[in-house]
Amino acid sequence: MQFTPDGPRKRDESFGLPMWQVAGFSVLFVALLLAFFLVPGIGHTDDGGGHGGPVVPVLLGLVIILSAAKLGGEVFERFGQPAVLGELIIGMALGNLALLGVDGFEFLRTAQGLEILAQLGVILLLFQVGLESNVAEMLSVGWSSLLVAVLGVIAPFFLGWGVSAWLLPDEETLAHVFIGATLCATSVGITARVLKDLGKLNTRESKIVLGAAVIDDVLGLVILSVVAGTISAANTGSSLDSLDALAIIGKAVGFLVGAILIGGWLSKRVFRLAGFLKIEGMLLALSLAACFLLSYLADRIGLATIVGAFAAGLILDGVHYRDLGERTKHTIEELILPIAGFLVPVFFVLMGVRVDLSTFGQIEVLGFAAMLSLAAILGKMICAAGVLERGLDRTSVAVGMVPRGEVGLIFAGIGAQLVLHGQRVISPPVFAAVVVMVIVTTLMTPPALKVTLARGARRRRAPALVEEPVDRPSPPLG
Amino acid sequence: MQFTPDGPRKRDESFGLPMWQVAGFSVLFVALLLAFFLVPGIGHTDDGGGHGGPVVPVLLGLVIILSAAKLGGEVFERFGQPAVLGELIIGMALGNLALLGVDGFEFLRTAQGLEILAQLGVILLLFQVGLESNVAEMLSVGWSSLLVAVLGVIAPFFLGWGVSAWLLPDEETLAHVFIGATLCATSVGITARVLKDLGKLNTRESKIVLGAAVIDDVLGLVILSVVAGTISAANTGSSLDSLDALAIIGKAVGFLVGAILIGGWLSKRVFRLAGFLKIEGMLLALSLAACFLLSYLADRIGLATIVGAFAAGLILDGVHYRDLGERTKHTIEELILPIAGFLVPVFFVLMGVRVDLSTFGQIEVLGFAAMLSLAAILGKMICAAGVLERGLDRTSVAVGMVPRGEVGLIFAGIGAQLVLHGQRVISPPVFAAVVVMVIVTTLMTPPALKVTLARGARRRRAPALVEEPVDRPSPPLG
Repeated sequence: MQFTPDGPRKRDESFGLPMWQVAGFSVLFVALLLAFFLVPGIGHTDDGGGHGGPVVPVLLGLVIILSAAKLGGEVFERFGQPAVLGELIIGMALGNLALLGVDGFEFLRTAQGLEILAQLGVILLLFQVGLESNVAEMLSVGWSSLLVAVLGVIAPFFLGWGVSAWLLPDEETLAHVFIGATLCATSVGITARVLKDLGKLNTRESKIVLGAAVIDDVLGLVILSVVAGTISAANTGSSLDSLDALAIIGKAVGFLVGAILIGGWLSKRVFRLAGFLKIEGMLLALSLAACFLLSYLADRIGLATIVGAFAAGLILDGVHYRDLGERTKHTIEELILPIAGFLVPVFFVLMGVRVDLSTFGQIEVLGFAAMLSLAAILGKMICAAGVLERGLDRTSVAVGMVPRGEVGLIFAGIGAQLVLHGQRVISPPVFAAVVVMVIVTTLMTPPALKVTLARGARRRRAPALVEEPVDRPSPPLG
Repeated sequence: MQFTPDGPRKRDESFGLPMWQVAGFSVLFVALLLAFFLVPGIGHTDDGGGHGGPVVPVLLGLVIILSAAKLGGEVFERFGQPAVLGELIIGMALGNLALLGVDGFEFLRTAQGLEILAQLGVILLLFQVGLESNVAEMLSVGWSSLLVAVLGVIAPFFLGWGVSAWLLPDEETLAHVFIGATLCATSVGITARVLKDLGKLNTRESKIVLGAAVIDDVLGLVILSVVAGTISAANTGSSLDSLDALAIIGKAVGFLVGAILIGGWLSKRVFRLAGFLKIEGMLLALSLAACFLLSYLADRIGLATIVGAFAAGLILDGVHYRDLGERTKHTIEELILPIAGFLVPVFFVLMGVRVDLSTFGQIEVLGFAAMLSLAAILGKMICAAGVLERGLDRTSVAVGMVPRGEVGLIFAGIGAQLVLHGQRVISPPVFAAVVVMVIVTTLMTPPALKVTLARGARRRRAPALVEEPVDRPSPPLG
């Protein structure tokens, strides 16, 4: 609809809007959003109206999430912080307005459709990261990744066990072990997003962190399964079969190696065959199907879905779409970009929404939570010692391993459901402390990583011409 | 991962694969898919495994739907049919494999996440159609659209009433009226997709159909609300307040006019302001937010969500994104394309999955269904008389109005829940007949429209230089 019939727009009036006007716009937007929910009945989606069904609250949620994500991202980018931190913080604000009496946003926590879109978002984010990664480069830092991952599991595990044994002397040993296990997880989503926001995904440090996070997911899963198995065995008076533990490890390693070898071989052939088909959109559909299939299979094996998505990205990295010939105008990366731009913010805003600020109000929880957070951060800092290459930015690698994100919450959630000798392994106050630990490690990572990466880059610029440390590869894995 | 290290691929081996090889590939794919579900346990998603939660069945569903959609689309395009018909048919095949004892696909019917993705898909499809439409052009065919819509509501309404009164003499009058009302709806999704597949969205015939479908949704809503109100009034012994009917009409018309006028004015300013923000992905996020907001508001008013999405597309049509300046490399259309390519097939495959072929097995249902389908098709054929312009392809306009799709199913579903004098207004066998009518009208449209459009184009090519009928506009509306 031609609303500007007055000839071509003057280009110079489009830019240079003063800061106060942007601020005014933001305030107006927030006021409108609040007004929308303070007017009774407007924000409530279950009172008849149309016949749209379950998609209707999802539509409203998406409007709020997309607007809020861009607003939060904009404000934080203006302060020089990664956009993802703004998305998390504005999500926390939306999710906790109920504490101020505004409960119109509560449906964001519960709408299942939004949860599924958020999960698809983080799956696509790791798919993107996989597409930008490269198996050969991952293997070239393989020993570093392995050592970083092992150190990043062992250190927080025993630190967490120690903190729990010290501050909660009445709990059973297996409870301490479980709390140690919740500190092992690494949530690669946050780190991957920050590295992506800052354009650092192709550094060797990033490869080490991403590789270590994948190995970490496997190791964390093994520890979790072994601990949970020991607890259920203790309940029945028996002990865990060590073959079970071996089976878990074998499945996980087999999946990753199998996915990359078989998937790489198969996808090349499937994409070449697909090149003969006439229909439009084949590249996008096949890429998404591959991503979702490996995510699904990863879950079936017992791994996180995002590990499968990362493997799918590795497999499809930049080679096979050429088989679709000249008819393909876009690369997979270009096709995925708008879909990820739509769904990825849903994940991070919702992760913020899920944070319950009222847990911060309990003093005794806060003390335990502070020590647990310290153990979680210090434990991952020891990862720095695992970087074998000289001249790399070890601090950034360690900081990149810190966030626990949803993986830590999932672990704690499993613990909250396990029962040992008639009592929950993770009691509600302990669970609250674990949640605080997850929040602290997740929120500190974006700004901390920004600082350490900038410092690392400054330090490297000076002696780079003499040492050229980046070009000296470590012995490749396998 | 470099799996082809043997230098650049020979380009000439990439094309010209014989038909039998494509067929072999298709058979292999279907066999693999079936094997996947016949192996016990693999296809079942609720037996422990990972910790992925509700997204896991959605992932599996998306793999199946995306692969099946491209396979079905490819086969039907090779036979010269629109791809959407292939998606519907392969969806019907998947959804009814349970009749052959393969029940691994049953979760496609019930997974709520897939339903929400499908709804987002049809919303984005209508948003795309709106983006390719133009208010000025819509108004230039306004009187034709209005007349087509009114005829397309009145004729099927009385034909359906008549068929019901003739074949179901024992039912109450209000039941006949309700069956007539279910024949009024037009599901613009199918027609829009076929016109899009065939590249005909910009013809005047398409504008008339799209405009008429929007008006139809408003009229259908009014009839439905009035009939439902009369039934509930008859139950309590009172009669419907005619002010209620007027209020429904007022709300619907007010929404559309308001959305286009206020939305157009507002979106221009919001997009210009957004041009000053630094963050990436602003155009995509704002466009999607506008689309979802209007879809949500349409539902709140009592209209279908897709009417709001269409209005959002009209508002954002090709003007305001220029306000985002040179930093925007893509148009809204280009950004929406991959998202729609992901979600739109989900809608059409799931629409096929929902068709229960076992209803075709009941003879007495089939007789009533056949007459009802005939009434539905003939009723919309009368629409052809509503096209005021000379030289246009009236048959294609009428055929474009035929599909009832999900709108007809929604109407019938409401009827199945309404109770009059202790009995359901729409009994189960009558509901099955309505479902058959919806299937017939929906499935016949793609091939029929393809035939009539081709005939219309042939006829026009011959005398076009003499008459130039396309350039003679009818009196504009308003």
